[in-house]
Amino acid sequence: MAKKIAAFGEIMMRLQVPGYELLSQAGTLNYSFSGTGVNVTSALARFGHTGYLVSALPDNTIGEAALSHLRKLGVSQSFIVRDGKYVGMYFLENGFGARPSRVTYSNRQESSFNTAPAGTYEFEEIAKRIDIVHFCGITLAMNDSVRHHMKTFAAAVKENGGTVVFDCNYRPSLWGNDGYEKAKPEYEEMLHLSDTVMMNEKDAMFVLGMETEKEERTEQLMDLIPAIAKKYNISVIAGTHRSINGDNTHSLQGFMFKNQAFTFSKELTFSVYDRIGAGDAYTSGIVHGEAEGFSPKKTVAFAAAAAMLAHTIAGDTPMSTENDILRAMTESVGDVER
Amino acid sequence: MAKKIAAFGEIMMRLQVPGYELLSQAGTLNYSFSGTGVNVTSALARFGHTGYLVSALPDNTIGEAALSHLRKLGVSQSFIVRDGKYVGMYFLENGFGARPSRVTYSNRQESSFNTAPAGTYEFEEIAKRIDIVHFCGITLAMNDSVRHHMKTFAAAVKENGGTVVFDCNYRPSLWGNDGYEKAKPEYEEMLHLSDTVMMNEKDAMFVLGMETEKEERTEQLMDLIPAIAKKYNISVIAGTHRSINGDNTHSLQGFMFKNQAFTFSKELTFSVYDRIGAGDAYTSGIVHGEAEGFSPKKTVAFAAAAAMLAHTIAGDTPMSTENDILRAMTESVGDVER
Amino acid sequence: MAKKIAAFGEIMMRLQVPGYELLSQAGTLNYSFSGTGVNVTSALARFGHTGYLVSALPDNTIGEAALSHLRKLGVSQSFIVRDGKYVGMYFLENGFGARPSRVTYSNRQESSFNTAPAGTYEFEEIAKRIDIVHFCGITLAMNDSVRHHMKTFAAAVKENGGTVVFDCNYRPSLWGNDGYEKAKPEYEEMLHLSDTVMMNEKDAMFVLGMETEKEERTEQLMDLIPAIAKKYNISVIAGTHRSINGDNTHSLQGFMFKNQAFTFSKELTFSVYDRIGAGDAYTSGIVHGEAEGFSPKKTVAFAAAAAMLAHTIAGDTPMSTENDILRAMTESVGDVER
Amino acid sequence: MAKKIAAFGEIMMRLQVPGYELLSQAGTLNYSFSGTGVNVTSALARFGHTGYLVSALPDNTIGEAALSHLRKLGVSQSFIVRDGKYVGMYFLENGFGARPSRVTYSNRQESSFNTAPAGTYEFEEIAKRIDIVHFCGITLAMNDSVRHHMKTFAAAVKENGGTVVFDCNYRPSLWGNDGYEKAKPEYEEMLHLSDTVMMNEKDAMFVLGMETEKEERTEQLMDLIPAIAKKYNISVIAGTHRSINGDNTHSLQGFMFKNQAFTFSKELTFSVYDRIGAGDAYTSGIVHGEAEGFSPKKTVAFAAAAAMLAHTIAGDTPMSTENDILRAMTESVGDVER
Amino acid sequence: MAKKIAAFGEIMMRLQVPGYELLSQAGTLNYSFSGTGVNVTSALARFGHTGYLVSALPDNTIGEAALSHLRKLGVSQSFIVRDGKYVGMYFLENGFGARPSRVTYSNRQESSFNTAPAGTYEFEEIAKRIDIVHFCGITLAMNDSVRHHMKTFAAAVKENGGTVVFDCNYRPSLWGNDGYEKAKPEYEEMLHLSDTVMMNEKDAMFVLGMETEKEERTEQLMDLIPAIAKKYNISVIAGTHRSINGDNTHSLQGFMFKNQAFTFSKELTFSVYDRIGAGDAYTSGIVHGEAEGFSPKKTVAFAAAAAMLAHTIAGDTPMSTENDILRAMTESVGDVER
Amino acid sequence: MAKKIAAFGEIMMRLQVPGYELLSQAGTLNYSFSGTGVNVTSALARFGHTGYLVSALPDNTIGEAALSHLRKLGVSQSFIVRDGKYVGMYFLENGFGARPSRVTYSNRQESSFNTAPAGTYEFEEIAKRIDIVHFCGITLAMNDSVRHHMKTFAAAVKENGGTVVFDCNYRPSLWGNDGYEKAKPEYEEMLHLSDTVMMNEKDAMFVLGMETEKEERTEQLMDLIPAIAKKYNISVIAGTHRSINGDNTHSLQGFMFKNQAFTFSKELTFSVYDRIGAGDAYTSGIVHGEAEGFSPKKTVAFAAAAAMLAHTIAGDTPMSTENDILRAMTESVGDVER
Repeated sequence: MAKKIAAFGEIMMRLQVPGYELLSQAGTLNYSFSGTGVNVTSALARFGHTGYLVSALPDNTIGEAALSHLRKLGVSQSFIVRDGKYVGMYFLENGFGARPSRVTYSNRQESSFNTAPAGTYEFEEIAKRIDIVHFCGITLAMNDSVRHHMKTFAAAVKENGGTVVFDCNYRPSLWGNDGYEKAKPEYEEMLHLSDTVMMNEKDAMFVLGMETEKEERTEQLMDLIPAIAKKYNISVIAGTHRSINGDNTHSLQGFMFKNQAFTFSKELTFSVYDRIGAGDAYTSGIVHGEAEGFSPKKTVAFAAAAAMLAHTIAGDTPMSTENDILRAMTESVGDVER
Repeated sequence: MAKKIAAFGEIMMRLQVPGYELLSQAGTLNYSFSGTGVNVTSALARFGHTGYLVSALPDNTIGEAALSHLRKLGVSQSFIVRDGKYVGMYFLENGFGARPSRVTYSNRQESSFNTAPAGTYEFEEIAKRIDIVHFCGITLAMNDSVRHHMKTFAAAVKENGGTVVFDCNYRPSLWGNDGYEKAKPEYEEMLHLSDTVMMNEKDAMFVLGMETEKEERTEQLMDLIPAIAKKYNISVIAGTHRSINGDNTHSLQGFMFKNQAFTFSKELTFSVYDRIGAGDAYTSGIVHGEAEGFSPKKTVAFAAAAAMLAHTIAGDTPMSTENDILRAMTESVGDVER
Repeated sequence: MAKKIAAFGEIMMRLQVPGYELLSQAGTLNYSFSGTGVNVTSALARFGHTGYLVSALPDNTIGEAALSHLRKLGVSQSFIVRDGKYVGMYFLENGFGARPSRVTYSNRQESSFNTAPAGTYEFEEIAKRIDIVHFCGITLAMNDSVRHHMKTFAAAVKENGGTVVFDCNYRPSLWGNDGYEKAKPEYEEMLHLSDTVMMNEKDAMFVLGMETEKEERTEQLMDLIPAIAKKYNISVIAGTHRSINGDNTHSLQGFMFKNQAFTFSKELTFSVYDRIGAGDAYTSGIVHGEAEGFSPKKTVAFAAAAAMLAHTIAGDTPMSTENDILRAMTESVGDVER
Repeated sequence: MAKKIAAFGEIMMRLQVPGYELLSQAGTLNYSFSGTGVNVTSALARFGHTGYLVSALPDNTIGEAALSHLRKLGVSQSFIVRDGKYVGMYFLENGFGARPSRVTYSNRQESSFNTAPAGTYEFEEIAKRIDIVHFCGITLAMNDSVRHHMKTFAAAVKENGGTVVFDCNYRPSLWGNDGYEKAKPEYEEMLHLSDTVMMNEKDAMFVLGMETEKEERTEQLMDLIPAIAKKYNISVIAGTHRSINGDNTHSLQGFMFKNQAFTFSKELTFSVYDRIGAGDAYTSGIVHGEAEGFSPKKTVAFAAAAAMLAHTIAGDTPMSTENDILRAMTESVGDVER
Repeated sequence: MAKKIAAFGEIMMRLQVPGYELLSQAGTLNYSFSGTGVNVTSALARFGHTGYLVSALPDNTIGEAALSHLRKLGVSQSFIVRDGKYVGMYFLENGFGARPSRVTYSNRQESSFNTAPAGTYEFEEIAKRIDIVHFCGITLAMNDSVRHHMKTFAAAVKENGGTVVFDCNYRPSLWGNDGYEKAKPEYEEMLHLSDTVMMNEKDAMFVLGMETEKEERTEQLMDLIPAIAKKYNISVIAGTHRSINGDNTHSLQGFMFKNQAFTFSKELTFSVYDRIGAGDAYTSGIVHGEAEGFSPKKTVAFAAAAAMLAHTIAGDTPMSTENDILRAMTESVGDVER
Repeated sequence: MAKKIAAFGEIMMRLQVPGYELLSQAGTLNYSFSGTGVNVTSALARFGHTGYLVSALPDNTIGEAALSHLRKLGVSQSFIVRDGKYVGMYFLENGFGARPSRVTYSNRQESSFNTAPAGTYEFEEIAKRIDIVHFCGITLAMNDSVRHHMKTFAAAVKENGGTVVFDCNYRPSLWGNDGYEKAKPEYEEMLHLSDTVMMNEKDAMFVLGMETEKEERTEQLMDLIPAIAKKYNISVIAGTHRSINGDNTHSLQGFMFKNQAFTFSKELTFSVYDRIGAGDAYTSGIVHGEAEGFSPKKTVAFAAAAAMLAHTIAGDTPMSTENDILRAMTESVGDVER
């Protein structure tokens, strides 16, 4: 059933060196606008839901370009505030084979989103008009003011009977020294407010400081996740295990823990064109499966196939329709479609 | 020995999204002009023959651009009629890994070629000036008027002692519902007029409705093809078996049935850059081998190597010289040539 | 006051040769999606109104790309039907100095819009939800079925108390031989249904067959327009006089006839970057001025400045905000804005 | 009447910095193949004649690319010899306003054309198969061996009753110090062999060392040209006067001296997009007018309009049809053609 | 005589939308690195001096790209400190005709340059190794810490017998409300330290708050500048008067006040390709003329021609050699140079 | 320890067809400037040494562009002479899978470097100011005059106590028929002057005409290299064994012979983006390892990893920092770095 789904998060400008040159070699950049919230709501809009972004953009030509881009992606702008002065940016140099891709950030802390004062967003109003809200650990890492927005919004949605989705997504470089220590209480607060959580055993061990005697990652996962679900009263915990192979391919296996049971997808191995944002495709698959009442088996398979296809799409934002994904779940690689 | 070879077929405009973006993401298209007839005669011109296209183009800037492009490819324009109003077009979105390439057609039925009235082409005259003519199943699928042109031309060439080459190339989307039923009598008529035919066991089973108890495709092939050669009095039947591998490579094995005997090429496995038009490269290899009096073994190896190289070339149209192909038949992949 | 404004018209794909090469020289095209309705509603959306397009697009990758593009332009898609098979296209080669720009059309008659059967659109429903509707003479030239849609929709809006805007926009190549004769009754029917009409003395003389003894075009205008306003009971008639100068500049003077009085703008002279769609910018200025209750003097000046700026913008569709236009009305050309 | 027209000249690779960057700023070049002979025969092919190039190209990938390009331009390759090792190249940086365009040559002396030994071309054979041959002063400047080819070919055409066209085109940088002194006897020899000559009063004064007491250039022209026509027994002498204006426009007036009478075109003033090769468009106009039996008045107007349009076309080679030029002769600058 | 010339200033990344699209229309940006100091020292390096930049860049891929770009421009990097985290950026949308160009800044205050702590630069050491230092009013507007660097450096150079050049360059948007009030004491301090100053009567009236009864700008200039020279003991004051014409051209007249006398250049009128950085070209011309001991008349003419040529060059940074400028001073616009 | 390292060699212009089109298909080229000496000194400059090029460039726009490019790469220009008329060029068409890359040269023999007369370079002066000099077998193949420069310079460096590095790099196409015979004495002379030599067993067998009874290449290497080191008194001999795999990957193993002992790197297998110049990266790694006093094991591993990364970098010239290489030596392929 079509849902109204909002995400709270920053809209960033992605500035990508085309092809495989370095920033110090090239003279041209391709740009687009993305962010975890953009990616998730855009993917869900493509599946037939209504996707809203709750965010802030400056009232200048860059904010205007960001809005145009979001409209193109099918994300509704009703809850975007025009305030503040800057848009966060990141530069992307594509890796090739043995040379990894490289992301360099501009100063995000000064962006409209990260400087939005209390009272910027009408969370009470918004919470009444949506079914599901999505948050991400990257936003949690920003600053106290943003964290306050986040928790206020989550609580409001919860109170109105909506579903809170939280993607742990711990980025070491954002939390700095003693990062795990700083992050733990913030994560715990968010987990208490959440219904669906994206995470795996690493988040459990490093962010939440949990311990396990298992050594293999699937065993660690199966050891730790049920305890988290119980402790924080979380209905669905889902995530992936990724391995990076030597030959420009990645392998990915999705999992989901729900009603005390684990479900795993097949391990998919595939060529990678654009890796950024593929995790958000997985999240959108889980949210869609739950919204549509898919079986856990179908949900995990759908989410994993959505993530696989997102690796073949240019840009951060998934572009596949439900149909594209269903076909990728059943068929082998095909010849030209005509 | 250098031959005069004509093809009867539509010239289409190919509009390709550069790189790996979708049409809904990009803002730029690369364009060129191609078609089975263009590809085969251009490839043969590159081997030293004279290639003519018998076709129709509108007298406007798009027709002019098509002619410029054909001249660049080395195809003679003496038999191209300027009439009608439109050029058929297709859009190509490149696939990547798990995401297949996608072709979307504009309305071909209104093109100059597909609306050319009876009497448009001087088939009698042309038949006297050429040695070989090439037809394709795509053209056969268009409409009654085009089919009438096709058979008139084939008969004229036959009468003048020329060779008729027919590539079965059945495209389900062009024949619609009950396609096989509609197509069968048309195909049979063409087969009766043909000396060299490109097909494999699938055409035999689906288009001609033949049956076999074999299950493996090579066995099916060897079971069915000799019967066709006999029934329609065809000198040479040739074709390929293609498999699409998981790692962006294809495998291809060519075959040829002549004088009651099958000849097979090695199975070649190779990386694919542009798959469209590679079948036409195989056809051009068979026609060239026969024209030059190669042994069946050499002809099939040449045609398979021509097809392999066509997968490494941008655009629909093969660009390899005889020399390039002969080298690819004998050598392993080489370092930079300087 | 912000209005709900719909346009009924075809969405076309514009395929433009970049820079100043001809189609037979280049190998790349820039593409976008436009049409009179797209241009007018997008411009009005940028002025703060809600713009809807009532149109049809095929359910394929080209239709999808058109929708993405429209969303980017800020046009609402609630009333766009996905049906039919094709999108109309046109190719644009940019002129330079003494060499005029050249437009070449693909077959529009087969497009989703031009083949939409009766009952495709819920005109009664739509009419209830909008304040203003816009039609164009290009649409009127298409075929009987489209003309029937057009008049049904206009009547429904009229009945619901809405405003009907009609841009005469007579294109000789679309009406063929005896075009004026065929067009006249259709135009008359539309004029009877219209409240605001875009036209000038040429439409009066050629399409409506009116006569005047004046020789200078402003005198002809002032002689003929009042009679039309009276005969068809039209509240506002507006339009422009354009002259094309030798030095890559155009001159434009806007006029408006309302309450028995003519108002003229200054004649503006300006450099031209992209001439296509500039007339739609003028229309959007008139509609906006009327919606906001501007004085005729301000409305005409605003519309003329909107048209002038539209000549400096890439693509068919105006991109200026109300602020940009107000500034262009008062200031001389400025230095870099920083 | 359609003629068979050959040109003897070098095919050069043009490497142009796109836009207005300098070679030391940019990283990309657009390339094409041109040369006076290419430009003249391609333009004449577009007018309906058959154009041949008599030249030499290396048997490598650059020679192949040059041939593809020539085919695209409609120039016949029957008389192009594949021999030698290199293709001459020049780099073009576009000027803007006060900054002039700049051409930098690679080493032309080592090109296939400039190193072709005696006996390379079958001039006797070719002379029998053509009506008109075109030569250029740039070729005359190359070296003794090329000059010998040139004169041998001219004499053979003359002997076979053909027409010899010679474009004086003196380039100071190619003749070096004491250039006029070295050039004079070579030019005189060519003039004796020529029927139609492109030159103006500057060639008369500087290359041929003639003197006049007139000071204004038209008077100088009218003083000197008749004497040359008489002395060398030349039927037609034609040329242009160009002035470069401050505002990115050029002015051009064409003239022709025939049957003891001068005919002048109007002075045309126009914006300039690509100035290189415009002189060759003028030549092609004169040759076409004479071939078709136009009146001198029409011939000169046609040639001047052809030259004007060539300034609006990307690349060295004229692309206008006879129709385009006839229209430009009569009409003022037009709006978009659709 | 070749001098050692340093500039103290920020290195910014320029992100320019190619052609004439808006940021909300395009998807690609051209980037380069510039700044007043970069432009002036690079231009002077091209005239044969040694140019150093005294600045700070982060130790990441963007800083690396900036260094590569500066090396390409010929600016020495010996005095560039690698510290801090960000590079200031600005986005440029090119205007066309009636639509002005538009610059949008990212957050400069967080850049390496603007956050460099006291002690970052070894001003004493640098002052001993250079002859001339250049400062700019844009730098003066940044923050106290930068202003402190600036004055410390200026004082150190003065003490070591070097020449201090200061370009007033007041940017209202950088000083905010009550900007003139805040700016005045800072400017006065810098003027006391300066030997050569770039300014005109507007700076005198608005920044320094001086009054004049004259109304025409040249008269105002001649009234106010001598008083400033006297009050602050400045040897050379130079600047320009610019007017922006309706037809894409600008007019520029340079002046210089030295030894109690004014010298003016001719007023130059020229087409504009890239206006940004042209003022820096003028400054570099004045500094070069003084360094070489040109007469004031030659210096002003040279600086004005340098500024004119800079308007025809892509990017902020002047690229003309002394030779290019000397030629532009004497010749009219020329034909292609070959 | 940071060294002063010069290379003596030609600077060539690389003109590369973008993507995978052939020169006869495309219309655009990417250009850069490179050469063995450029690549080695630029790589060493990136490792913290000072790199100089000793070479010659013409005083025109192409020479200027080459200098800009070299500056960007961080190579010092103090020893580059501006003389002669041309720059050597090569065209590169990228191969794909079964189709090898193809290099086509323009006429190098006429370049500034290859026509520089005796006395062009101040070898005595330069030799005093550098620690290490690098030569290459490509330079040795040019002509007598270049060979004379080379040996004079090598002797001068030797005399001043510097280190001579010589990369054998035998290119058959440059030496022509009986190439080995012509080359042998030249190579022997260079080997006598060298301290560090890049070569493998093929150079020993083919160029030096040595014989071995071993059949496997590593055994041949171990049989022949020690004898060469002894005979020519060479301290370090290093090189690689490369194999080209079917799947677009190459395998590479580096070796080094020093103090009578062989050291081998692991065999690395990796995807290849741009193969040209990767050998120079290996050389730079060996020179750096020796300069820094790395153990042979670390030096060979470093050089092999440098070569591997150079295959992932666009253009001929290595761009990796010491840090990038050290990381690639220890880590497996990583995810996006952010």
